[in-house]
Amino acid sequence: MDNNLKHKNIIEAVKEELTCSAHNLDHVFRVYKLCSFIANHEKDVDLEVLIPAALLHDIGRVKESKDNTGEIDHAVLGAEMAGEILKSLDYSNNEIDKIKHCITSHRFRSGNEPKTIEAKILFDADKLDVIGATGIARTFMLAGQFGQRLTSDEETSEYLSHNTVENGRIKDVSKHTPFIEYELKFKKIPSKLYTNKGKEIGEKRIAFMEEYFTRLKEEINGI
Amino acid sequence: MDNNLKHKNIIEAVKEELTCSAHNLDHVFRVYKLCSFIANHEKDVDLEVLIPAALLHDIGRVKESKDNTGEIDHAVLGAEMAGEILKSLDYSNNEIDKIKHCITSHRFRSGNEPKTIEAKILFDADKLDVIGATGIARTFMLAGQFGQRLTSDEETSEYLSHNTVENGRIKDVSKHTPFIEYELKFKKIPSKLYTNKGKEIGEKRIAFMEEYFTRLKEEINGI
Repeated sequence: MDNNLKHKNIIEAVKEELTCSAHNLDHVFRVYKLCSFIANHEKDVDLEVLIPAALLHDIGRVKESKDNTGEIDHAVLGAEMAGEILKSLDYSNNEIDKIKHCITSHRFRSGNEPKTIEAKILFDADKLDVIGATGIARTFMLAGQFGQRLTSDEETSEYLSHNTVENGRIKDVSKHTPFIEYELKFKKIPSKLYTNKGKEIGEKRIAFMEEYFTRLKEEINGI
Repeated sequence: MDNNLKHKNIIEAVKEELTCSAHNLDHVFRVYKLCSFIANHEKDVDLEVLIPAALLHDIGRVKESKDNTGEIDHAVLGAEMAGEILKSLDYSNNEIDKIKHCITSHRFRSGNEPKTIEAKILFDADKLDVIGATGIARTFMLAGQFGQRLTSDEETSEYLSHNTVENGRIKDVSKHTPFIEYELKFKKIPSKLYTNKGKEIGEKRIAFMEEYFTRLKEEINGI
């Protein structure tokens, strides 16, 4: 089976698993494109590890969100699910292990640090999709979905200085707004990335978010 | 009763009516601030007409959205509700008529054109709140609330050229995305405004939206 056909088969498997969630699928394709872009700026990237990993990285998402126990980590489960799919498509054990490492370590909270260049690129691309113009869209979509307000009275320096992030989540969820998410979480993303190109894209995206939230504040104050 | 006390009473009445909808209330205060800003750039504005009108303009919103017949127009109903509140606060009949005209004519679809400077300012401020950084936030919040996608395959020039706006709504709702809303509706807003300052703010806000969506497209293509 040639690589293109393998990728097509992977995409079909991912679609089947994430079909009820167009958002996840769109995210997967954005991350895939970002991975390709970053890979062009890094040396010795094995695309036959990176591409399958990018396409498969969130395959455990729907099962995680349907799980009520809170015990499923989609990065860990996703790696297992990906392993089965890859085996059926004649990937070698060596490739499968490398791809599984990328998937297990793509998540902040999984506790598994990305060790290979492919895992580092996937980690960076996945985080970059939370910031920039895409990040603005995603955070406001979530705010709308969960009935949050556009801005809130809690968006003061006093509130922000007292709130800290715990296990990757902001402590006082009731007062979430996109700006608070940005101040407490998104801003720190570029410094946590691994690749030079990832950091560079991340800084540009944060600069644009900064401009966006500055304008939003001005507009809210009636200018 | 002095004017400040009257305004406080108006705000209390608006809060009571819109209490289940923090979004509407936030919008009311943004529009109120924009009205004040635009009023500073216009001559002979009666603030004792404009301020109550700005605070009361959406008071019929919750009743409209709870109505299943589709017959309630919140601009028309809101003017009636506002009239009762203003009467109880000792506004003169002349003031009440002027305020009611602002409220009835603040809506694109109501068929009532704003004729006074106060009505024109309210119309402009209300429309400006749909565009710019605020507009980006609002349109993505609605997309999240209604389960739309961040972007879609329909965002092509071919699709956009075939779709038209009918009665202020985009015809094919199933394919809505924020970008399609922007291309087919928001872009046209500045040309429909009445005041010079409103048009100036509108053009700046559209320029920023244009920049935003250009960046979003670049990011989605993996840059």
